[in-house]
Amino acid sequence: MEKIEFMKYALSLAKESAEEGEVPVGAVVVCDGEIVGIGRNRRETVKNALHHAEIEAINSACQKLGGWRLWKCDMYVTLEPCPMCAGAIINSRIRNVYFGAKDEKNGAVVSAAQLFDMNFNHKPLYEGGILGEECSEILSEFFRDLRKKKAGEEK
Amino acid sequence: MEKIEFMKYALSLAKESAEEGEVPVGAVVVCDGEIVGIGRNRRETVKNALHHAEIEAINSACQKLGGWRLWKCDMYVTLEPCPMCAGAIINSRIRNVYFGAKDEKNGAVVSAAQLFDMNFNHKPLYEGGILGEECSEILSEFFRDLRKKKAGEEK
Repeated sequence: MEKIEFMKYALSLAKESAEEGEVPVGAVVVCDGEIVGIGRNRRETVKNALHHAEIEAINSACQKLGGWRLWKCDMYVTLEPCPMCAGAIINSRIRNVYFGAKDEKNGAVVSAAQLFDMNFNHKPLYEGGILGEECSEILSEFFRDLRKKKAGEEK
Repeated sequence: MEKIEFMKYALSLAKESAEEGEVPVGAVVVCDGEIVGIGRNRRETVKNALHHAEIEAINSACQKLGGWRLWKCDMYVTLEPCPMCAGAIINSRIRNVYFGAKDEKNGAVVSAAQLFDMNFNHKPLYEGGILGEECSEILSEFFRDLRKKKAGEEK
C-alpha cells in the first residue's frame, strides 16, 4: 500500500468519528507495510481527554506488537498532532509521521510548536499535506454542520 | 490534606514503580481535596509507551468523574511532565500542576520546553520543587542501583 492508501484508511476512521458527533480525526500505525494500530477521536464518547486518534492507534500498536518501542513503525494521521499526541509519538519512537491537514492553533509539529525538531530523546521524521485537502474538508464540513445545528436549535 | 501530603502519596506510588524495576514516577489527581485519580510509571510492565504516571492518573480521574474536563482538578507528580503528559494535562484542562523534581532533558513545563506558557487552549498554573529533594533522590537511587546491577552483570 502507498502513502495515499494509508491516509485514505485514516480518513475512513475520521468519518466514523464524524458520524458519532466527534471531531473527525483518524490515525493508523503501519509496520512493514501492514496496519498494526488504528485509532480515531472518541473524546466525547469515552468521556476521556486521552482518546485522540493517535493515542488510540499507538495503544493498539503496542498491544499488537507487544512492546513500547515502535521503531519500525510509521503513523498516518489526518490532522497535525497536538502536544499530547506529538509527545506520545516521540515516547513510542515512531519513525515517520505523515499528516494531512495543519492545525494552526494546536498543532505541535509545524504550527503552534515544533516538538519533533527539538532535542528530545527521539526525533521522528515528518511530512504534512498528504491528502491535505480531503483531511481539511472533512473537518470544515463537521464544524459547518455543527454551527447549522446550533443555529437551528437557537431559533 | 496539604500539598506536601498529596506529594507524599505520589512519592509512595513512585516507590511501587521502583520496586517493579520501573523508573519511579508517581502522580495523583485531586478534586475538592480528595484523590480522584492515581498513576505511576508502568511502561515496561504494560509494554506501552503511554503508561506514564500522569496519563494513568488522568485516565482514572476521567473514569471516576465521568467526564473529560478536569477543570476543578489539580495534579501532583513527582517529576516534571514530559511533552506527552504536559499535553494531556492541557487537553484535560487540569487547573494546577505541582511537580517535585525538574527533568532537565525531557521536562516540558520549565526545562526543555514550556508548554504551559504557550498559547494552547488551556494554560495550567504550575509550581515545581514540592518535596523536590525526595522526588529527585528516589530517581537518583534507582539509576545508581541500575548501574550497580549492570556493572555486576558485566563482571
